[in-house]
Amino acid sequence: MKPLSQKMLDMKASSVRKLTKYADEAEKQGKKIYKLNIGQPDLHVPEEYYERIRGFHEPTVEYMPSQGIPQLLEAVESYYKSVGIDVDRNHIYITTGGTEAIMFTLLALTNPGDEFLTFEPYYSNYNTFFTMTGATPVAVTTYVEDGFHVKREAIEAKITDKTKAIFVTNPGNPTGTVLREDEIRMIADVAKEHDLYIICDEVYREMVFGGVNVTSFGYLEDIHDRLIIVDSVSKRYNACGARIGVLISKNDEVLELISKLCQGRLAVSTIEQFGAVGLYSTGFRVIHQIRDEFEKRRDVVFESLKRIPGVFCEKPEGAFYLICKLPVEDANDFLIWMLQEFDDQGETVMAAPADGFYATEGLGRDEIRIAYVLEPEKLVRAIEILGKGLEAYQNR
Amino acid sequence: MKPLSQKMLDMKASSVRKLTKYADEAEKQGKKIYKLNIGQPDLHVPEEYYERIRGFHEPTVEYMPSQGIPQLLEAVESYYKSVGIDVDRNHIYITTGGTEAIMFTLLALTNPGDEFLTFEPYYSNYNTFFTMTGATPVAVTTYVEDGFHVKREAIEAKITDKTKAIFVTNPGNPTGTVLREDEIRMIADVAKEHDLYIICDEVYREMVFGGVNVTSFGYLEDIHDRLIIVDSVSKRYNACGARIGVLISKNDEVLELISKLCQGRLAVSTIEQFGAVGLYSTGFRVIHQIRDEFEKRRDVVFESLKRIPGVFCEKPEGAFYLICKLPVEDANDFLIWMLQEFDDQGETVMAAPADGFYATEGLGRDEIRIAYVLEPEKLVRAIEILGKGLEAYQNR
Ligand SMILES: Cc1ncc(COP(=O)(O)O)c(C=O)c1O
Ligand SMILES: Cc1ncc(COP(=O)(O)O)c(C=O)c1O
Repeated sequence: MKPLSQKMLDMKASSVRKLTKYADEAEKQGKKIYKLNIGQPDLHVPEEYYERIRGFHEPTVEYMPSQGIPQLLEAVESYYKSVGIDVDRNHIYITTGGTEAIMFTLLALTNPGDEFLTFEPYYSNYNTFFTMTGATPVAVTTYVEDGFHVKREAIEAKITDKTKAIFVTNPGNPTGTVLREDEIRMIADVAKEHDLYIICDEVYREMVFGGVNVTSFGYLEDIHDRLIIVDSVSKRYNACGARIGVLISKNDEVLELISKLCQGRLAVSTIEQFGAVGLYSTGFRVIHQIRDEFEKRRDVVFESLKRIPGVFCEKPEGAFYLICKLPVEDANDFLIWMLQEFDDQGETVMAAPADGFYATEGLGRDEIRIAYVLEPEKLVRAIEILGKGLEAYQNR
Repeated sequence: MKPLSQKMLDMKASSVRKLTKYADEAEKQGKKIYKLNIGQPDLHVPEEYYERIRGFHEPTVEYMPSQGIPQLLEAVESYYKSVGIDVDRNHIYITTGGTEAIMFTLLALTNPGDEFLTFEPYYSNYNTFFTMTGATPVAVTTYVEDGFHVKREAIEAKITDKTKAIFVTNPGNPTGTVLREDEIRMIADVAKEHDLYIICDEVYREMVFGGVNVTSFGYLEDIHDRLIIVDSVSKRYNACGARIGVLISKNDEVLELISKLCQGRLAVSTIEQFGAVGLYSTGFRVIHQIRDEFEKRRDVVFESLKRIPGVFCEKPEGAFYLICKLPVEDANDFLIWMLQEFDDQGETVMAAPADGFYATEGLGRDEIRIAYVLEPEKLVRAIEILGKGLEAYQNR
């Protein structure tokens, strides 16, 4: 048989599910596993979602307009206006998750050889999108010691005449880092100076702790023509399975290509779009509930981690992830050992090895990502098990 | 600003919506338009869809497994077994519409320069997928005079050492042509001889008229390793807006890449997958209802068209489309004229100009595609208006 796509064959599989087979085995042996590896929140979707879903009963489930249903475009516009970001419904496209918004953005921007600056560690599925679209990622390394904040020199050192865009995740996954206003300004300035687009994945927007301002590139008027914002209901409303995302741009040329792509794939799920109107109708009630809950968990996890000798992380400012450095050589080996060899009263812990979030080979080998998507008491217990595991691992 | 993706800029926009702006204007002037341009069936979605949708009330709307929910995989497996095609749930991936199944198939197969044989006229959104994935379409022309059936010589004439796959739509859109068993066998033989994959878009499967056998490449055991079937609930259950499709392959290497792509995009809508289980639970009740209704309409449209002097088409065998040749030089001009200048008692007709379905410049200029997605009486009236319009156009 003729060879399949070489670039797809070369693509690494997702790192967050890498340990699944070990976890399955451990569960078969009767171990209980606290799973901190997947960014799947456990909180409840607001009832308004189901109300809209159940309220839909058209005789035919038709294709909706490829841009999205007017009611949802309006809801998204209102949400943005309410947070002080001036967008009009013409600037909005509804997508199948933030995922499709990212794919379409890369498709619209990329010519062969174009480089996209990303800040490693980054959401590892971006690699799938880069591979699919032929975009070349160029990683700017950020460090656990700096709380994964970024420096101008580090960005500029990676800019070449092939650089097309700066691709930012804010708040960050896997880091939980929230960019400060001055960082956003700096990145915007760099983009202007070098004539770059800015893609900002803001699917964790609003999940920002400590009363700190929610930052967004959307507030900067002077870069509107070079900005594409990716947004999603997945995390903000505990509705990952709804697969409703949003792409926003004020660049008419970009919008025209996005429109072509959206027409090509016809439409986003009809009923999920009505459900999403219900999500947006909750205003800030759910958004702030979720934020407050994750802030509580962040505190619990961070305080618990601080007590484990040799573990290091800065206090993350948002989303529901953190990366911490462990006193081990290879976090992959350690995590597998935790599943295969270790338990504390029949219980163990699973996290994501962080090396899969780095593009540069060898980085992140002693780091793990924790998604704190369990209730606080469970988190306390999970981190306690992690500590005991580390001790046993070192003494093994 | 730096240039956007050149290949996206070069891509033609969809031809089925090309006349939308003229239609909008005509409607503003109070004209009633019979719309035969879009493949959006008007029949009812079965109540079982809504039952499953309303029955879903999990506290969190989580990401489902990237392959699809077990219940739906099982339903698809059962459906295939019931039509005598032997597939196992391991061979099945649930996708966001047949659309995503096609995109992922092309992504999995394509290396730079790879050529995909398609039979023109073909579903014009394929062009979007070819552009997105870098696959090069090579068109094998089929003709209205042959009822758009295909010939071995025509296929073999286009095969080069870059040919990677034969991409077939069966039943056809925009043609309504159903491949005979001997044609399928012939295409399979060509694929084997030249070591090609076969991608078969069978989203209109079951919509086959006159008691004729439903044909599928799935029945040929000897090409299972080179076959990818694309399927969808859109047309078969009047559920276009559900965005639920299916990809089937028995080639493990292909499945591995599809799995990576599915993991990268995380999941298909949770609630729509449950809805789709409801669709499949209707067995052949709905499938045959829909087929019988479209068969009635096909007869009505075909008989009506035959009465118009100078109009030519072969009787289509399936789906809900047909292409007919008109006694005009440029069907685009004629269709625009119908919207702008013509009416019969305040009513006019809109169809899709067929040139947009051909890859070869200049073909199909005097042809239109009719999607017979209206009730029979409306179709009779629509074709009557078409006839009157043609007469007036010729005498203008
Ligand atoms: C940074 C980031 N971007 C995008 C996504 C995709 O989200 P969705 O497609 O569910 O909107 C995720 C999901 O985890 C994410 O973490
Ligand atoms: C031939 C063909 N393939 C695929 C599709 C896409 O269908 P969907 O994505 O709704 O399953 C269509 C829709 O009209 C079609 O006509």
